[in-house]
Amino acid sequence: MKTVLQPDYDYASEHLLPHLFDALSAHALMLSGCGVAHADEAARLLRELRRQPFPAYDPSVEDVFFTLDRELATRDSDAAGALRTALSRNDLDMTIYRLSARLRLMRAMERVLRLRRTLLNLAAREIDTVIVAYTHHQPAQPTTLAHYLTAVENVLARDTVRMQCAMTHLNLSPMGAVALGGTSFPIDRTRTAALLAFDRPIENTYDAVSASDWQVEIASVITVVSTTLSRVLYDLLFWASRGLLSLEDGLVQGSSVMPQKRNPVALEHARTKFSKAIGVTQSVIISSHNVPFGDINDPGPDMQPPLTSMWHDFRDGLELLITSLTNPVLNREEWLREAQQGESVVTELADVIARNTGCGFRDAHAHVKALLAHLHSQGRTVSALTAADLEAVGLNLPQTEVQSALNPAEFIARRTTFGGPAPSVMAGEITAAHERLGTDTSHHDSLTTRFAAARTHLEGGPL
Amino acid sequence: MKTVLQPDYDYASEHLLPHLFDALSAHALMLSGCGVAHADEAARLLRELRRQPFPAYDPSVEDVFFTLDRELATRDSDAAGALRTALSRNDLDMTIYRLSARLRLMRAMERVLRLRRTLLNLAAREIDTVIVAYTHHQPAQPTTLAHYLTAVENVLARDTVRMQCAMTHLNLSPMGAVALGGTSFPIDRTRTAALLAFDRPIENTYDAVSASDWQVEIASVITVVSTTLSRVLYDLLFWASRGLLSLEDGLVQGSSVMPQKRNPVALEHARTKFSKAIGVTQSVIISSHNVPFGDINDPGPDMQPPLTSMWHDFRDGLELLITSLTNPVLNREEWLREAQQGESVVTELADVIARNTGCGFRDAHAHVKALLAHLHSQGRTVSALTAADLEAVGLNLPQTEVQSALNPAEFIARRTTFGGPAPSVMAGEITAAHERLGTDTSHHDSLTTRFAAARTHLEGGPL
Amino acid sequence: MKTVLQPDYDYASEHLLPHLFDALSAHALMLSGCGVAHADEAARLLRELRRQPFPAYDPSVEDVFFTLDRELATRDSDAAGALRTALSRNDLDMTIYRLSARLRLMRAMERVLRLRRTLLNLAAREIDTVIVAYTHHQPAQPTTLAHYLTAVENVLARDTVRMQCAMTHLNLSPMGAVALGGTSFPIDRTRTAALLAFDRPIENTYDAVSASDWQVEIASVITVVSTTLSRVLYDLLFWASRGLLSLEDGLVQGSSVMPQKRNPVALEHARTKFSKAIGVTQSVIISSHNVPFGDINDPGPDMQPPLTSMWHDFRDGLELLITSLTNPVLNREEWLREAQQGESVVTELADVIARNTGCGFRDAHAHVKALLAHLHSQGRTVSALTAADLEAVGLNLPQTEVQSALNPAEFIARRTTFGGPAPSVMAGEITAAHERLGTDTSHHDSLTTRFAAARTHLEGGPL
Amino acid sequence: MKTVLQPDYDYASEHLLPHLFDALSAHALMLSGCGVAHADEAARLLRELRRQPFPAYDPSVEDVFFTLDRELATRDSDAAGALRTALSRNDLDMTIYRLSARLRLMRAMERVLRLRRTLLNLAAREIDTVIVAYTHHQPAQPTTLAHYLTAVENVLARDTVRMQCAMTHLNLSPMGAVALGGTSFPIDRTRTAALLAFDRPIENTYDAVSASDWQVEIASVITVVSTTLSRVLYDLLFWASRGLLSLEDGLVQGSSVMPQKRNPVALEHARTKFSKAIGVTQSVIISSHNVPFGDINDPGPDMQPPLTSMWHDFRDGLELLITSLTNPVLNREEWLREAQQGESVVTELADVIARNTGCGFRDAHAHVKALLAHLHSQGRTVSALTAADLEAVGLNLPQTEVQSALNPAEFIARRTTFGGPAPSVMAGEITAAHERLGTDTSHHDSLTTRFAAARTHLEGGPL
Repeated sequence: MKTVLQPDYDYASEHLLPHLFDALSAHALMLSGCGVAHADEAARLLRELRRQPFPAYDPSVEDVFFTLDRELATRDSDAAGALRTALSRNDLDMTIYRLSARLRLMRAMERVLRLRRTLLNLAAREIDTVIVAYTHHQPAQPTTLAHYLTAVENVLARDTVRMQCAMTHLNLSPMGAVALGGTSFPIDRTRTAALLAFDRPIENTYDAVSASDWQVEIASVITVVSTTLSRVLYDLLFWASRGLLSLEDGLVQGSSVMPQKRNPVALEHARTKFSKAIGVTQSVIISSHNVPFGDINDPGPDMQPPLTSMWHDFRDGLELLITSLTNPVLNREEWLREAQQGESVVTELADVIARNTGCGFRDAHAHVKALLAHLHSQGRTVSALTAADLEAVGLNLPQTEVQSALNPAEFIARRTTFGGPAPSVMAGEITAAHERLGTDTSHHDSLTTRFAAARTHLEGGPL
Repeated sequence: MKTVLQPDYDYASEHLLPHLFDALSAHALMLSGCGVAHADEAARLLRELRRQPFPAYDPSVEDVFFTLDRELATRDSDAAGALRTALSRNDLDMTIYRLSARLRLMRAMERVLRLRRTLLNLAAREIDTVIVAYTHHQPAQPTTLAHYLTAVENVLARDTVRMQCAMTHLNLSPMGAVALGGTSFPIDRTRTAALLAFDRPIENTYDAVSASDWQVEIASVITVVSTTLSRVLYDLLFWASRGLLSLEDGLVQGSSVMPQKRNPVALEHARTKFSKAIGVTQSVIISSHNVPFGDINDPGPDMQPPLTSMWHDFRDGLELLITSLTNPVLNREEWLREAQQGESVVTELADVIARNTGCGFRDAHAHVKALLAHLHSQGRTVSALTAADLEAVGLNLPQTEVQSALNPAEFIARRTTFGGPAPSVMAGEITAAHERLGTDTSHHDSLTTRFAAARTHLEGGPL
Repeated sequence: MKTVLQPDYDYASEHLLPHLFDALSAHALMLSGCGVAHADEAARLLRELRRQPFPAYDPSVEDVFFTLDRELATRDSDAAGALRTALSRNDLDMTIYRLSARLRLMRAMERVLRLRRTLLNLAAREIDTVIVAYTHHQPAQPTTLAHYLTAVENVLARDTVRMQCAMTHLNLSPMGAVALGGTSFPIDRTRTAALLAFDRPIENTYDAVSASDWQVEIASVITVVSTTLSRVLYDLLFWASRGLLSLEDGLVQGSSVMPQKRNPVALEHARTKFSKAIGVTQSVIISSHNVPFGDINDPGPDMQPPLTSMWHDFRDGLELLITSLTNPVLNREEWLREAQQGESVVTELADVIARNTGCGFRDAHAHVKALLAHLHSQGRTVSALTAADLEAVGLNLPQTEVQSALNPAEFIARRTTFGGPAPSVMAGEITAAHERLGTDTSHHDSLTTRFAAARTHLEGGPL
Repeated sequence: MKTVLQPDYDYASEHLLPHLFDALSAHALMLSGCGVAHADEAARLLRELRRQPFPAYDPSVEDVFFTLDRELATRDSDAAGALRTALSRNDLDMTIYRLSARLRLMRAMERVLRLRRTLLNLAAREIDTVIVAYTHHQPAQPTTLAHYLTAVENVLARDTVRMQCAMTHLNLSPMGAVALGGTSFPIDRTRTAALLAFDRPIENTYDAVSASDWQVEIASVITVVSTTLSRVLYDLLFWASRGLLSLEDGLVQGSSVMPQKRNPVALEHARTKFSKAIGVTQSVIISSHNVPFGDINDPGPDMQPPLTSMWHDFRDGLELLITSLTNPVLNREEWLREAQQGESVVTELADVIARNTGCGFRDAHAHVKALLAHLHSQGRTVSALTAADLEAVGLNLPQTEVQSALNPAEFIARRTTFGGPAPSVMAGEITAAHERLGTDTSHHDSLTTRFAAARTHLEGGPL
C-alpha cells in the first residue's frame, strides 16, 4: 500500500496544500461563527502552519490531512478536535479537487484568451494576404490568411463559453456534506462556500461527495478545444512542409545527420501535446465508468494525476502555438503565385458567367468545367484563358471581365457576404471579435480578483 | 467507391431528407427574396417533391443532393439553375447535419427531463425509505433512497444545462458560406438562418464549413451524462444482486438452463448501452483529430453514422432506465434490517459523544472505534451497545441517548444540514428540484414549438 | 425491453444464423455420439431447418435460440428436449460469437494479405522512382517509392502475425461449458470442438462463458493496423495535395460549386474509415471494463453490433486503399525535380567529405552546414555547389565527386546498407517479402479450407 | 521551446541513459569491427562516461545525445567524430525506446507470472470452497473459488502469450537505419543487433525509424490484460462489499468520520490503476493517429512519458492485486450458507429429473420452474423441497436423490466435465496450469539472462 500512499502524499504535497489550508481554514472560520468552541484557535493555527514547511511522508500517517491533524493536535488538541467537527475527508477532498481544478481552468482560460488575441493580431496584419484554401486536400478557392485565422478564433470564442459553462458546474462547495449525509451539528454551509469563493453549496450532500460530472466535463472541454487545434496544426504543418510558413530560430531543431534541416518542431510538439491531452482525458472518463455513485477513490485522489497531465499537456500545446503564431515568417509571394497559377479562382468565373449571361449557376458550372477540359487538352493554364475561348462556346464576356474574374485579389474582394473574406468585411469581423474577446477577458479578470481575494482573506484576514 | 457512396446515399435517405428539403427550401426562399429569377419556382417545386417518394440509389448520380438537383432540372431547368446560386454541398451538408443533430439533441433532452421526473417521483414516494449508503464498497451511513435519487437528479439537472449550452453552439446557420468564402452574389444569410429557426448565421464563412467543435461537444456531453448513469447503474445492479431491488416481468429474463433465474437484464442492457455511447464518441473525437481544418469528409458525412449509433445507444439506455425506475419493487424491510443490524449508524454515536461530553469529535471518533473493538472481542453487535458499555470507558450518556443515536431513522432525521437526508429537508429539496425541472421543461417546449413552426412554414407556408 | 430484444433478434437473424446452426448441429452430433436418445433426430431436423427461411421476430419469443427451439419442438418434442441437454445460451452464444469473429478475422486477414501484395507489386514497379522522404515535416533525404512502400508492407507482415496470434486465442470452443460449470451429463467437449474446427475446448468452463479477452484483442489488433494505415494515408494525401499522386476517375469526386475539383475522396474516406475503426474499438474495450467476470450481456450480445461496425469500417478502409494503390497516377518528374533542386541530398555530401578527408562525420556535418549558410547568403541553391566552394573552406574534393554526391539517384544507389533503398538491395528485399507473403497466404488458405470443410460436414455430412 | 526540451532532457536522464549508453557502445563496437578509425576509443570512452554522473540540463545543448557528444568531443574529438558515422538520432532514439520498452515489458511479464502463481496457489488452497457464481448479477450455480481463480489464471496465460508475441515485434534493431535510408558507409547492422541482444535488424531502414506499431501493440496488450483484471476486481469488491472477502490490516483504510470503517482500498486502487492504464493507452494510440509515416516526434520522444505512466499504473495494479490475493480472509461459511439457502442448485435438479424420468431437459427445466413457483406461493424455500412435492406433479424421485441434487457440494462434485469445477477435475487442471506457468517462467528467465549478458558485455566486456 505504500506504493499507493506515498505517491499520493507526494502529489498532494506538491499540488494541493494551499487548497487544503484554504478549505480547512474556511471550515474553522465557519465553525467558529456557529459557536463551536476552539474552532477560532484552529483557524489561527492553520494560518501559522501554512507558513511553515510541510512535513515529508511518514509511513505511520495515512495522508496529508492526518499529518496536518497531528500537527494541530500536537499544538492544541482542543483546536484539533474542534476542527474535526462536521468534517470528513470525503467533502474535504472533493473541495480541494474543485479548488485545484478551478485554478487550473482559470489558467487554461487565460491561455485560450491569449491565443485568441494572438490570432486576431496576426489576422489584422494579414488581412490582405492571399492564401489558397484547400478542401478535400485539393486547392479550392483563394481567401485570406485573416479569414482562416479569424475562423479559428471564432471557434475558440465558443470554447471560451464552454469553459465558462464548466466553471459554473465546478465552482460549487461540497463542504458540510461530511461523509455523505451532512451532520447533526448545526453548521452553515453557505458561509463556508462564500469564504472559499464558491458560487454556493452543492444542494444535495450525497451529490457533493459522489459526483464526478464536473471532472468529466472539464476533460471533455479540453478534448473539444484540442481536436480543433489538432486540425489547425495540420494546416500549419502542411504550410511549413511547403515552405509557406517557417518559424524563428528558437522554435526549430536541426538534425544530427542531415545538415540542411530546420524542423518546425514547436508545431510538431504542439500537435502531440494535444494528442496526449485528448488521450489522457480517457483516463478521466474511464475512471468514472462503471463504478459506484458514491465516495470512492476512482474519481477522487486517483484521478488527480491524470488531470494534472492533461492540464500540463494542454498548457504546453497552447504555449507552443501562441509562440509559433506570434511572429511567423510567411512566404506571401509563393502563396499568391499558387493562387494566380492554379485553378482555384474558377468559381468566380462561373459566378460571372451566371450573372452576365443569365444562364443559371448550374449551367455556368458546366461551362467552366468544359472550358477547363479544353485548356487541359491544349496544355494551357487557366491564367491563359481569354474572352475568345469563351466566345468559342457561345459565351460573350468582355476580356476585362474574364481577367478580373481570374484575379485572386478580385475574387476575394467580391466576397462581401456576411462572414466572407473581403478585407472590407473582415475588418469589421476582427473588430467584433476583439470586442467579444474584451468581454471574455473582463469576465476572467473579475473571477481572478474574486478568487484571489478569498485566498488572501483565508491566509490572513480578520478572524 | 460504390462501397462508400451507396451506404452514404442510403443513410441520407433514411435520416436526412427532411433536413435536406428544409435547407434547400429556405435557400430558395431567401434567393427569391433577393431577387434571383426562378428561385420562387424552385421553392414551389421543392414543396412538391418532398411529398413524393425519393428515388433509390442510382450509381450514375453521386448523392441525394445531385439526385434532387436532377429531379428539379427535369421539371424546370431554370429553377434548378437558380437554386444552385450561392450554394455548395459544403454549407448545405453542414446545415443538414446541424438540423439533424438539433432534432436528436431535442429528443435526448426530452428523455433526460423525463428521467429527472421519474427520479423525483420515486424520491417523493421513498422519502422515508432507509437505505445504507456505501463508500469505498463498505457500509457507511444510513440515508434515504430519496436522498440518493435526488442526488442523481441534481447531476442530471447540470447535464441539462450542458445540453442547453451545446444547443447554443449547434443552432447556428452555415448557409451562405457556399464552398468556404461566401459568394459574389448578394444574398441574405440572416434570412436563411431565420427561416431554418437557427439563432443566427455563423459569422465566418470558413468556420461555417470547417468547424466540428459542435459535434465533438455533443459527443462529450453524452459522455458526461453516460458516465454518471453508468455509476447509478452500478448501484442499481448491486441492489438487484442483493435482492433489495427487483424489476417487473417485462424487464427480466430467464435462463435456458437455470430454472430459478429472473435476470434484471433491463438494467444490464442500460449499462452496456451507456458503455457503447461512451465508446462511440471516440469515433467522433478521433475523426476530428489531426485532419485539416477545412471542408473534408471526416467530420462530415462519415461522422454521421457513428453519431446516429451514439444517439440510439443513449436513447435506449435512457428508456430502459426510465422504465426500470418507474415502479421498481423494493425490499424496504431488508434495507432497514441492514441499517439496524450493521454498524453504519456509529457516526452519530460519535457526534452525540462529542456534543454531550464536549470532548471534541477527534476524541469521540477514537472512543467509538475502541468501543467497536471491545464489542467485536466479545462477539456482540452494535445494536447491543448500552450506556453501561460507555460508562466503562468513562463516558456518561443516558441509555435513551445511546439508543436513539443507534436508530437509523433518528440518524437520518437529525441530518437537517442543507442538502441532508432528513425528510423535512428532502421535501423542500424535491420541491425546488421540481421547479427547476419545470423551467427546463418549458424551455424545451418553447424550442420544440419554434423548430416545428419553421418546418411547417417551409413545408407549406406562403411563398 | 422490445427496444432491446427486437434489434438483437434482427441482428442475429442477419449475421449469426449460420453459426447458430453450426453450433447446435455440432452439439447434437456430439450428444448422439454420447448416446443421448433423439439427439440424432435433432441433428437431422437442424439440417432441414437451416435450408428454410428463418421466422421473423415474434414478441412472445425471446430470441433466435428460443425461436429455433420452438420450431424443433413443434416438429419433434423429443428431439427438441434432447438438444437442450448440457446446453445453455451462455456457452452457445459465446460459441456463435467466436465463429462469427473467426469468419470476419479470416476476411480481414485476406484483405491485409491483398494490400501487402498490392504494395509489393507497386514497389516492384517503382523500384527506381525517386521521392523525397520527409522527417519532421521537412524534406530529409531522397529515397525510392519502393523503399517507402516496402516499409509499409513490412509493418503489415507483422500485423499478419498479430492476427494469427489473435486467431489462436479466438479459435477455442466454449461448447459444453453450459451455464458456467459444465454439466452432470457425460459429454465430449473435444468432439464438439473438432466438429466446429476449433483448435480445442477451452479448458476451464467458467473461463469459457466469461472471458472477453479475445474480443478486446481483436479490437486491439484492428487498432494497431488502423493507426499504421492512418499514417500511410497522411502521406498519400500529402502527395495528392501536391499533385505528386492522383487517382483514377472512379475514385475522385467533383464539387457542386468549384468546377476545377477532382478530390481524392477514396483516400479521404479510407482515412476516416480507419478513424472510425479505431474509435469503435473503444466501445469494445469500455463494454468489458468494470463489469463482472462472468456471463453478462456487456461483452456478449451487446458487443456484437460495435464489432460489426468495426469490421465494416476496417473492410471499407482496406478496400479503398487497395483500389487506390493498384494503379495510382504518379508525377515522377515532379518528385525527381524536388530531389534535384532541394537540399535533401546534402547528407551524402557530408558522408563523402568524412570519407575523403578523414575529418570524421561530426566535422563533415558542420562543414556542410556552413556551406549551406554560405550559399543561402549568396542566394544560390545546393545544385550550384562546386568543388571551388569546398576548396574555399579547405576541403579538397574533385568536382565529379561533388556532383555525384548531389545526384539523388547516386545518393540512393550508394545506400546499400541492409534494408536501404538502393535498387540492388530493394530487389532482394521485395523477393524476400513476397516469399513471406506466400507463406502467410498458404497458412490462410489452409485455414479457409479447414473451416469450410467443417461447415460442409455440419450442413450435410453423414450423421 | 525550453518548456519542451527541459522535461524531455529530465525524462531521458531519469529513464533512458543506460539504454543510450548501450546503443552507442554497440554502435562504436560495430564501427570498430568495420574498421572505422577511432571507434574503439569511442567505445572505451563510453564505458568510462557511463560510470560518471550525467550532466544536468544546459539550455545551450539540445538533448542528452548532444550532451554526451560534447562530453566525448571534449575528451577525444576523433573518437566523437567517428561515433557519429552512420548514426542519426532517428535510429538511435528508436533503439533506445525499444530497449526501454523491452525492459518494462519483461518486468510486466514477471508480474503477470507472479499473479498467475498467486492465483494457482490460492486455487489449490480453495479447491473445495463453495461459492455461488452469479450471471447477469443474479445467483446462478454453485462452483468453487478454485474454479473461478483458475479461470482467471487461464486468461492470464493467454495474456502471457500476447506479451511474448509483442516481444517478438519489439525486440528488433533499428540501428544502422541512420536518418531513414541507411548510409553509404559499409556497416554491419547484424552485429549491432547482436550486441544489443535484439533478435535481428529491422529489414527496411525506412520502417526502422518510422513504425510505431510495436508501441501501439504494447499499449493494446496492456489494455487487454487490464480489462480482464478490471472485471476480476469487480467481483472481488462485490465479495468484499458483502463481507465474503476481507483484506489484512495493511491493505485497508479507515475513515476520518465513520469509526467502523475498514475499506478494502487496495482493491479499489487496483481497479483505478487499471482504469488509468487503459485510459493512457489512448494517448499512445492517438499520438500515432493521422501523422506522417516517417520520423516525427509524436510516436517518438513525446510518447515515452505516457508509456511510462501506463507501465507504472499497470505495475501498481498488479502489485496491489498480488498482495491482496496472497492471503485474503475468506468467509467460507457465509458463502456455503448462500449456496445452501438460495436457489442456485436447481439446475442439477432439472438434470436429475431429465436423467431419471427420461423426459428430456426441456421439460425437466419447465417442471423445476413450476415447482419453484409452487414453493414461492407457499412461502417455502428450495431447501425444503421433498420427493412428495415432485410426486404431486407426477415426478417419481427417491427422497435421497432430491436431497443430494440440492446439495451444493454434490452439485459441484458431479460436474466432472472437462474444465468443470469438480475437485477431482480441478486438481488436474491446476497441475496442468502450473506446468504451463513453469514453461512461461523458464522462457522469461532465459530472456532475462540473455538481455543481462548483453548489458554486461557492453558495460565492460572485451573491446
